[in-house]
Amino acid sequence: MKKLINDPKNVVAEAVSGFAQAHSDIVRAELDPVFVVRADAPRSGKVGIVSGGGSGHEPLHAGFVGFGMLDAAVPGPVFTSPTPDPIVAATKAVDGGAGVLHIVKNYTGDVLNFETAADLAGAEGIEVVSVIVDDDVAVKDSLYTAGRRGVAGTVLVEKIAGAAAERGDNLAAVAAVAATVNSRVRTMGVALTPCVVPHAGEPSFTLADDEIEIGIGIHGEPGRERIKLEPADAIVDRLLGAILEDMPFEAGEEALLLVNGMGGTPQVELYIVYRRAAELLAERGVKVTRSLVGNFTTSLEMQGASISVLKLDAELTELWDAPVQTAALRWGR
Amino acid sequence: MKKLINDPKNVVAEAVSGFAQAHSDIVRAELDPVFVVRADAPRSGKVGIVSGGGSGHEPLHAGFVGFGMLDAAVPGPVFTSPTPDPIVAATKAVDGGAGVLHIVKNYTGDVLNFETAADLAGAEGIEVVSVIVDDDVAVKDSLYTAGRRGVAGTVLVEKIAGAAAERGDNLAAVAAVAATVNSRVRTMGVALTPCVVPHAGEPSFTLADDEIEIGIGIHGEPGRERIKLEPADAIVDRLLGAILEDMPFEAGEEALLLVNGMGGTPQVELYIVYRRAAELLAERGVKVTRSLVGNFTTSLEMQGASISVLKLDAELTELWDAPVQTAALRWGR
Repeated sequence: MKKLINDPKNVVAEAVSGFAQAHSDIVRAELDPVFVVRADAPRSGKVGIVSGGGSGHEPLHAGFVGFGMLDAAVPGPVFTSPTPDPIVAATKAVDGGAGVLHIVKNYTGDVLNFETAADLAGAEGIEVVSVIVDDDVAVKDSLYTAGRRGVAGTVLVEKIAGAAAERGDNLAAVAAVAATVNSRVRTMGVALTPCVVPHAGEPSFTLADDEIEIGIGIHGEPGRERIKLEPADAIVDRLLGAILEDMPFEAGEEALLLVNGMGGTPQVELYIVYRRAAELLAERGVKVTRSLVGNFTTSLEMQGASISVLKLDAELTELWDAPVQTAALRWGR
Repeated sequence: MKKLINDPKNVVAEAVSGFAQAHSDIVRAELDPVFVVRADAPRSGKVGIVSGGGSGHEPLHAGFVGFGMLDAAVPGPVFTSPTPDPIVAATKAVDGGAGVLHIVKNYTGDVLNFETAADLAGAEGIEVVSVIVDDDVAVKDSLYTAGRRGVAGTVLVEKIAGAAAERGDNLAAVAAVAATVNSRVRTMGVALTPCVVPHAGEPSFTLADDEIEIGIGIHGEPGRERIKLEPADAIVDRLLGAILEDMPFEAGEEALLLVNGMGGTPQVELYIVYRRAAELLAERGVKVTRSLVGNFTTSLEMQGASISVLKLDAELTELWDAPVQTAALRWGR
């Protein structure tokens, strides 16, 4: 294992510390317990939004803390859910009196720990509503998960719910729009290589030199099948085919197309994937009106990518376009 | 070799095509010859800025085309300079009557081809000035290069020169600020793994499982030395030590700190590097007032990072902060 780290057990604390220093205009970090919070939190009268989960998926979630998106992010150890304690602390730190939304990826540990944290915060008088993200069409019931997994679509839920909270929507309305995004987004990914969890020191799984995993999870969980390496266009057809089978489009409907890198994929490859995905959507009569390409929900140094398609309407498009100012996503400010 | 590509010989054309589609609000692509240009080019009366070089370093340079930065980028084949022909075409496409600045990384092929293109454009009545970027302190005279190599500091030259052009500076002034940035920025990098050029299909060099290359070039050119893997903090001390030896700071001077990923490095590692670099600069009395962390000048899927330090003053800080709207760098708009 070769990594730019010091002691593997300090990876998260050191990375969070560096992150907060590099982006001190946007966030500050609390280190006991560990969470990242907007520099101007709490905002009185604004619904607070907290997300979190195991580390190793950066920029998810800390990279999305800031104006128009999350109020706080709670990073657990690498690929391991944070405990309720820092989630409660983050929830209290962002409570401006209008309640707090928890955006939770659908993994058993995250769901359980966020639920406990919501109960504890509720006992202290903070109204908390949770929305579970489960956008991965690859498999139902998997390692770590009952039901579908929450993957890159989480970024779209966080951006759009964040915009709704920023314009002053109340807690019920912000939760409703988050749930709407989750219901309209589908994702599927592919891995070319495994990743190495620092404290494990070994690849999380193995793939032969000519083998790829279709439908990979963001912790390297098994997908649908292992196949021989194919040209990018054929792989895109598999991923997007599964997405469109799960969520059909009528001709003329609009979509946001997200091509997400798993962390170790060169950018040229992501744009080759984007090109074919956009072409295939056009063939099906889908109008791609918004796009996002880059590393947003990663699996450490894994090589691979995922495709997400969000079915847009005028309301979701307006919220997507609203200003955002975070370390990893920024426009309009 | 496992990559998300189709035919290796179509990598650049397909990636450029996907890039232009994904960012059609900012750029358009010309495919014969290949270059990427601002959607609103040429801008009458504004100095045009063109950069370019071999592909494989994305988002450099196409990701920096847009308001407040480059007017056009000319991608060559992977790790190979573009020929004069597309450079001339890009120069003509951005000429708004105020002349064109070429920003050229210091590699023999790039310097030669941009020089020829400048002569050809000049013969057609377009005034062209070139600024060579050579920020890499690692080695003098290297594979592909006489003198120092141009690496991640190029991003800072492009951003600051772009801001000067956007506010209406004339060609001589824009060239002068570009040269000033180059004179005040130093970079050094480290590789943990090699990269694989698509049409070669094999790693560009080899490193043992416990070995890293200090002072690596962005095409995998040899650096200063190969050493056994060390903790991140010790590696940072080597890189930053070399930078500060080359460009000493007085206590109280201000700096922009750029930690650049080589393409395959997880984001947590970049922030661990940032943390130690910021700490070391603080120990030396240097005030880090601006920061940038991420994949900006990459070497395909290489794992590793580089550190760049730019000595700021009030003028450079103002130009750095000016609005920018490109695929890879965006704020203030």
